[in-house]
Amino acid sequence: MKCRLCGKKPVIYMPHHRLALCREHFDSWFLKHLERTVKEFRMFSKDDGILVAVSGGKDSLALWDALLRLGYRADGFYLDLGIGDYSKRSREAVERFAGERGAKLIIRSLSEELGGIPLLVERTGRESCSVCGSVKRYFFNKVAKDHRYAVVVTGHNLDDEASSLLGNLLSWNLKYLGRKHPVLPQEGGFVRKAKPLCRFTEKETALYCLLRGIDYVEEECPFSEGATSIFYKEILNRIEERSPGTKMRFYLEYVRKVLPLFGQDSKESLGRCRVCGEPSPSEVCTFCSLRERVLNFIGTGRSSTG
Amino acid sequence: MKCRLCGKKPVIYMPHHRLALCREHFDSWFLKHLERTVKEFRMFSKDDGILVAVSGGKDSLALWDALLRLGYRADGFYLDLGIGDYSKRSREAVERFAGERGAKLIIRSLSEELGGIPLLVERTGRESCSVCGSVKRYFFNKVAKDHRYAVVVTGHNLDDEASSLLGNLLSWNLKYLGRKHPVLPQEGGFVRKAKPLCRFTEKETALYCLLRGIDYVEEECPFSEGATSIFYKEILNRIEERSPGTKMRFYLEYVRKVLPLFGQDSKESLGRCRVCGEPSPSEVCTFCSLRERVLNFIGTGRSSTG
Repeated sequence: MKCRLCGKKPVIYMPHHRLALCREHFDSWFLKHLERTVKEFRMFSKDDGILVAVSGGKDSLALWDALLRLGYRADGFYLDLGIGDYSKRSREAVERFAGERGAKLIIRSLSEELGGIPLLVERTGRESCSVCGSVKRYFFNKVAKDHRYAVVVTGHNLDDEASSLLGNLLSWNLKYLGRKHPVLPQEGGFVRKAKPLCRFTEKETALYCLLRGIDYVEEECPFSEGATSIFYKEILNRIEERSPGTKMRFYLEYVRKVLPLFGQDSKESLGRCRVCGEPSPSEVCTFCSLRERVLNFIGTGRSSTG
Repeated sequence: MKCRLCGKKPVIYMPHHRLALCREHFDSWFLKHLERTVKEFRMFSKDDGILVAVSGGKDSLALWDALLRLGYRADGFYLDLGIGDYSKRSREAVERFAGERGAKLIIRSLSEELGGIPLLVERTGRESCSVCGSVKRYFFNKVAKDHRYAVVVTGHNLDDEASSLLGNLLSWNLKYLGRKHPVLPQEGGFVRKAKPLCRFTEKETALYCLLRGIDYVEEECPFSEGATSIFYKEILNRIEERSPGTKMRFYLEYVRKVLPLFGQDSKESLGRCRVCGEPSPSEVCTFCSLRERVLNFIGTGRSSTG
């Protein structure tokens, strides 16, 4: 097999694109394919201030790096979740990345403001991935609005999107299905959100990092062990192996052909949280109700020992 | 674990119903659940003439047996596909079943009328399951109309329906998705079709046969080895194992909540085949075009040696 563009030894073969590329041409393909995705889904322009939510993993750092190289005004946002050494190493990777590039990085620490994920899980009894999701959604939106960014982008790749699509189809969660678009517009107190890596597999983002010398955190979040999302990724990988191209077609055909059919059911007009003023389907948003429960718990703890 | 109704030793635990039942209560549950399904989806009534398409396997024989016990006017139809010993044993099982019950059985032989599946596959170069599907659809519809049955019923079970739903979702085949209902009305030259076992797993139909002493053919069609439908069944079984009840919810929620959204895209008004007059999306229906190709092949063969 040879690089389709120059005939040199390829570093990757992407069966879903029927494309083998050498080191150099994979790098330029990655940038072009990213820009094509951004444009096709009208995610943002070169004039927009972009907040890249970075975790320290391969996807978000590959995304931030590629956006900077393409000339986008992309700053980073790191939320320290307070998950022990995992968060420590992630934060270091993100700070190193930003430092090397002289890129602007905003950091907030969940531990300092409220308590890390382990504490929140312990005190609310809620499932860790669900708590973490609520917390991230809140901070991404709040920080982007406070700093007047036009859009928040996340590193969700094709594997993430296809596996969560599969999960939502198995349970026919029409509300989530209706929101499964690579870009969600600014509306009702939410800033615009986009997933520019939605057409890249995790293999492709990992290779991009490797070739670019990006020093990302390889370990998965310790709370993600046995997560359903990982299980669905394995299932889709088995299907992909048997029939290459299925994953990509499954996701993109959904977005292009089917999502509009679900659109109607998913739109609900949200009110505002009476505590923080952020959009919320209930009187108090999930984040503030987490906060209330943690503070009450501390209150109870203090009074019982005081 | 005990039978929920009498406390005796159970023969089955059905996690998707959270229900353990003894031999006797499983049998009565099977009949009740079948009748409930027939009524919920308005498949047919006790006045309707029902043609049960039987293959000699567990599902179709369980269905025919249960319908007879419930007092439905159910006759059998067996299409001999000419697949060597497999078809021979299947035909024997069906004839024995009908003989023991004094039930009416209509038999047609593909080999005599056109040539068995192996010959059709060889001479058309088409995929065996696809040829077989076309042939069955043609005969089921034609025989039911010629003999004035109100409805054709097939033994498709929950595993069949959920796995084909999964396959159609992965490829977003909106045409097939729009027809994925347990009952399709009589229209445009098609007789009504129903799948009364759509809420039973294959484990349940196999157990029903075992307890009723129904001597069905256990071997799978030799052409089905490696079939995609079997692969998707395995995938869904893995998901079901991790999260019992998913398969049933996945299929039923689709039918109740989602299918109506796809309905619009799937309806197409069919013309009639200019050869046989049966409904067809093209000028000549699939069955007649198969027949033409087989006859032309024989013609060509003769003239070259003559």
